[in-house]
Amino acid sequence: MIKVLIMLITMIPMGKTAIWAKEPIQDNNNGMIVRISEIEVYQEYLDEYLNHAAEVAQISVEKEKDVISIYPMQLIKHDTQIRILEIYRNQKAYENHIASPHFKKYKEETLHMVKHLDLIDTYQLCPTNFNKIFKKSD
Amino acid sequence: MIKVLIMLITMIPMGKTAIWAKEPIQDNNNGMIVRISEIEVYQEYLDEYLNHAAEVAQISVEKEKDVISIYPMQLIKHDTQIRILEIYRNQKAYENHIASPHFKKYKEETLHMVKHLDLIDTYQLCPTNFNKIFKKSD
Repeated sequence: MIKVLIMLITMIPMGKTAIWAKEPIQDNNNGMIVRISEIEVYQEYLDEYLNHAAEVAQISVEKEKDVISIYPMQLIKHDTQIRILEIYRNQKAYENHIASPHFKKYKEETLHMVKHLDLIDTYQLCPTNFNKIFKKSD
Repeated sequence: MIKVLIMLITMIPMGKTAIWAKEPIQDNNNGMIVRISEIEVYQEYLDEYLNHAAEVAQISVEKEKDVISIYPMQLIKHDTQIRILEIYRNQKAYENHIASPHFKKYKEETLHMVKHLDLIDTYQLCPTNFNKIFKKSD
């Protein structure tokens, strides 16, 4: 009886995975990091923040060959909400990026402007499409 | 006095814009539609939905020259949450896309699988970067 109870208890946290999901989520990233950064900026720093975000995005894609995308967007209906599509060739490319002078400058100079930051990691669904969309897929 | 009151009342809805925002939000899209679609799928249809989403994305970017990006992603930590970066050259390109046989097929066959859909329109922050990232920017 105790054994059954322990079994039941240990099953609870994995219940959804064990019972409902047909298959584990499929990693199509081929080692890439594919991320949507969700950022909320304080209204009073918005213009200043946008300049910094555009600058670091441009320099990174230009100078770092394994930064495939840093593509910042501003929500039209909520102008303090920023989304950035970030794609790094691999973990090393990401580590090089966050150690770069331009990223460090961006981070230091915008830290007080950022109200909220979420890094949303994803798996791309369609590797063939990746090759058709992004210049640095070649 | 009544005139002043009416003035005050009419100012309320535009208060934030009139007083706080330094400048209106800047449209850097050059006529493009730049959108993040946020989609939640019912768990029981997830695998099936992912196949449809990958298929329509691939066909659209391949066949439609003015569909610059339809890049679907699945959130690693919330596998029923899908995000799609959609970029259309212009309004006409978008209209052609939603009238295409492959989009209509996708829409019809996935309608019952979608729990929630949000189309989040954005302005890109950095047009120079757009040219460096996307193949069809040329």
